[in-house]
Amino acid sequence: MNEGAVDYSLYLVTDRKMLRGRDLVQSIERAIQGGVTLVQLREKSVSTREFLELAVRVKEITSRYQIPLLINDRLDIALAVDADGLHVGQDDLPLPKARELLGARKLIGVSASTMAEALLAQQQGADYLGVGAVFSTSTKTDASKVSLEQLELIKKSVTIPVVAIGGIKETNLKQVLATGIDGVSVVSAILAQEDIFEAAKQLRELIRI
Amino acid sequence: MNEGAVDYSLYLVTDRKMLRGRDLVQSIERAIQGGVTLVQLREKSVSTREFLELAVRVKEITSRYQIPLLINDRLDIALAVDADGLHVGQDDLPLPKARELLGARKLIGVSASTMAEALLAQQQGADYLGVGAVFSTSTKTDASKVSLEQLELIKKSVTIPVVAIGGIKETNLKQVLATGIDGVSVVSAILAQEDIFEAAKQLRELIRI
Repeated sequence: MNEGAVDYSLYLVTDRKMLRGRDLVQSIERAIQGGVTLVQLREKSVSTREFLELAVRVKEITSRYQIPLLINDRLDIALAVDADGLHVGQDDLPLPKARELLGARKLIGVSASTMAEALLAQQQGADYLGVGAVFSTSTKTDASKVSLEQLELIKKSVTIPVVAIGGIKETNLKQVLATGIDGVSVVSAILAQEDIFEAAKQLRELIRI
Repeated sequence: MNEGAVDYSLYLVTDRKMLRGRDLVQSIERAIQGGVTLVQLREKSVSTREFLELAVRVKEITSRYQIPLLINDRLDIALAVDADGLHVGQDDLPLPKARELLGARKLIGVSASTMAEALLAQQQGADYLGVGAVFSTSTKTDASKVSLEQLELIKKSVTIPVVAIGGIKETNLKQVLATGIDGVSVVSAILAQEDIFEAAKQLRELIRI
């Protein structure tokens, strides 16, 4: 689990719908205190101004804890807050264009659900891959399914870090880690829990074993 | 109607909902052939990838006719297609941030519905103002109302070009032009019409008188 300086081991993707009214920025801080190693801010239904203001607040937290902050999809927001990077899905900016606009020093991750997407993203200079959904998930109902066998095969076929995503939680974490991937990306396993700090802490401990 | 090199006189803002299934890119080309002098591409419900692909196609058309292309809200798309500029509303990126990221050579327009917003935008370096809604509009139901008297007062209070927007059509065009503004921004008066070319041509002729 050591590919350069970035620790992908417990990668939090945000989804405010999970929070049942709790403050997103405070929840992210609790998750970081519990052991989250990287934060991806994902917002799909707010104005650009709201996304920006939220990203500014989250950046203050991630900077204080020296955790990388990536922005989902929106390169304008990533540039505006000088985030550590961008995560793009297959419906977002193509990686070569994102790299051209963001520069070589920023992290760019790409969602991949097939071997072809994974190999192309690596070839085009992705810093890491988000591969999934490995289990069914309520967060992204449109996500393609990736079996643990496919996940393992993708991990063995690329040299960049691979983060698994989709329905990962305490009870299936061991199976996912057994594929040799570099980290797990979680949403509800942290943000939907009653005690966000404890949920992150327990996942982190299971990953460390 | 001459403030530098940009002709704001007949400013088209796109809205694909108006087209009842007709192709947006072809419709924009017909509008340009009819006399549109500037195009703002506005998309609120497509993925970043779709917006980008559409913007690439529209840019080919606007470049061919040497018409400026501005992108609504999305600085990432404006950067990705090297558009001529960006139009920001009060819920989009703040103008100083947009300018910092886009540079001095690109056009940035700002929506203003009050004198305070207009003066602030000019002070912060807007290239032009979009002021409205001067008439009620089905395109943006949340738009604040600006009277023709307020529009005239704003025009007299700033030195940058002012484009009026909101429900402008053949039958009220004269009233709007009488305020001394630099151009009219239209959506449905062109894109909702049976013959887009003729609609643009007639508006352009009325503006030229």
